[in-house]
Amino acid sequence: MNKYADIHIDNVKLSEDEKAVVIIDQSKLPGETVYLTLKSNTELWDAIYTLKVRGAPAIGIFAAYAMYVLAAASLKDTGNNFEEFYDNFKRNKNYINSSRPTAVNLSKMLDRMENVVVAEKGQPLFVIVEKLKEEAKKIQEDDVKMCRAISEYGLSLVKDGDGILTHCNAGQLATSKYGTGLGPFFLGIERGIRLKAWVDETRPLLQGARLTAYELNKVGVECTLICDNMASIVMKEGKIDACFVGCDRVAANGDTANKIGTSGVAVLAKYYGIPFYVFCPSETIDFNCRSGSDIEIEKRPDAEIKRAFFAEPIAPDDVKCYNPAFDVTDSELITAIVTERGICYPPYGKSLKELFYKE
Amino acid sequence: MNKYADIHIDNVKLSEDEKAVVIIDQSKLPGETVYLTLKSNTELWDAIYTLKVRGAPAIGIFAAYAMYVLAAASLKDTGNNFEEFYDNFKRNKNYINSSRPTAVNLSKMLDRMENVVVAEKGQPLFVIVEKLKEEAKKIQEDDVKMCRAISEYGLSLVKDGDGILTHCNAGQLATSKYGTGLGPFFLGIERGIRLKAWVDETRPLLQGARLTAYELNKVGVECTLICDNMASIVMKEGKIDACFVGCDRVAANGDTANKIGTSGVAVLAKYYGIPFYVFCPSETIDFNCRSGSDIEIEKRPDAEIKRAFFAEPIAPDDVKCYNPAFDVTDSELITAIVTERGICYPPYGKSLKELFYKE
Repeated sequence: MNKYADIHIDNVKLSEDEKAVVIIDQSKLPGETVYLTLKSNTELWDAIYTLKVRGAPAIGIFAAYAMYVLAAASLKDTGNNFEEFYDNFKRNKNYINSSRPTAVNLSKMLDRMENVVVAEKGQPLFVIVEKLKEEAKKIQEDDVKMCRAISEYGLSLVKDGDGILTHCNAGQLATSKYGTGLGPFFLGIERGIRLKAWVDETRPLLQGARLTAYELNKVGVECTLICDNMASIVMKEGKIDACFVGCDRVAANGDTANKIGTSGVAVLAKYYGIPFYVFCPSETIDFNCRSGSDIEIEKRPDAEIKRAFFAEPIAPDDVKCYNPAFDVTDSELITAIVTERGICYPPYGKSLKELFYKE
Repeated sequence: MNKYADIHIDNVKLSEDEKAVVIIDQSKLPGETVYLTLKSNTELWDAIYTLKVRGAPAIGIFAAYAMYVLAAASLKDTGNNFEEFYDNFKRNKNYINSSRPTAVNLSKMLDRMENVVVAEKGQPLFVIVEKLKEEAKKIQEDDVKMCRAISEYGLSLVKDGDGILTHCNAGQLATSKYGTGLGPFFLGIERGIRLKAWVDETRPLLQGARLTAYELNKVGVECTLICDNMASIVMKEGKIDACFVGCDRVAANGDTANKIGTSGVAVLAKYYGIPFYVFCPSETIDFNCRSGSDIEIEKRPDAEIKRAFFAEPIAPDDVKCYNPAFDVTDSELITAIVTERGICYPPYGKSLKELFYKE
């Protein structure tokens, strides 16, 4: 039975007139399914910054479409002046790239789009713009293939009935289809392999409760929502056979930046002797980062902790907060890094390089 | 400078006419300071169950006053019939005791009140009731002395400028004054020793954000609120010199039941090499529990995770939740257990027994 076909979530796409990027506003889920049609650079930037679109691969795809949309719109102003067109492209690229610092996919996909402009220099601008559209669509197609492959590898690590702890959302909503860390749940349904999900709610912005529980519950995965601080008790009680998490940037040595709290889950998993798997598309590996200490961690506003989602502020107004959006999990805590090309085991400095690195 | 005197929170007391128990409704903090005047057994039970009064020592004090109030009210019905009076007392005692299962103080203080009834049998009932009032007041006075002593021992473990991670609320609001795990912050202010608090918000009911941040911020303790899943990153970044937590029941071997998430903090502290201290009034030790596996863990409603405090439900309505109110921290993760009589170190089976156990 393939229930998956019924629940495909079209969370990033071009509008029908191809003049805008259309997304599901993830900040409104699960209460409301609202589609947004975004055209201006400020709207596009804001959608990333305010997490209307989130998840490293989904941000990369969104940014690629955004660059196409902005480039197409600039044609009417730049006539056929390549330098003006390219300057404008670079300004928009830098601006979109400034929306969030931690996930590597954003800057990598922006570079991939810029490479098209550079490679097609000399062609009429409308041809370059057409090539940008093709490249953005190719980025999305590549993502779908990547997710499918990574889900296959992930599913090979577990068995029917296993309890899997998830943190944040590495599902369809974080990619353009299937997901990475959640991929094995969907693929498992197709294969009659039922995994049980234990879903960390993932404070402060509750992507686990709002998005992962929503995606999994919708397709009939047995799914139990817990607060982040309950990960220890469910591990201790023997409910968890493996942890599946996504990632936003993986350093050359395997140190992994992912949603805040991931490193804590990894420490607990090690203590309780439970495998901890990072689902990592090759695009998320950053060989320019030697280790986790080279990864910039985004700090976000206090209000996300004290006010967001709550009927009233949950703490005194003048209490300060510390709100890092990500943390780095040391590679020594990671059992394996699951990629679309295969599964890497420690030492990651060697295994990642063997699988991916091209001098 | 003693700022403490300015901020005493009178969170459990007898009403002026001594016919009711008066509490601050902790479920309304920090937004509103609402005092409740409670008389009937159902009101009193509900105040514990719905966490209007919470914290193991505070619940014990509250229950003692509740037994006095209910016994006094029963006089008009029981005339001078001891058996009828005592039957009624026991019914109320069992009922109040059923409000929450995990904290030992509740049942211990109820037993202490029953012992008064048994010891005074033969006296006129109004005399017994008077003795019950004295006993309840004595329980509260003992708590204040205990908190002061435990704060002294706690403060001896840290130094000026240390960063302390807190979980849940083991402060004034959890006792009748000073607090246990937060006691050293208040005592520190009196002594010019400034501890920095890193406050876990403590999902699902946010006692850290609502109560601990409120208490500490009010007296000028440098206080930073974090989500529970940020404990790992602040430890990794070197911000934490020690963890201070309270407890709801400590087994004879040192295994400690406390607010859900405590065991996770302890595992992280061990991984990062940070001392983890349990603040434990002797009343909270249960020598009838051999180990943590003998401690009953209260399970609470799904709605506390999905709905409480939020403007809208944060997860799909039909997603199930798992909501244990406490977890057990294995004694091997605990650096020391701080009591009002001294500091116990491992092995706790021996050190706790030496300090407290009377055959």
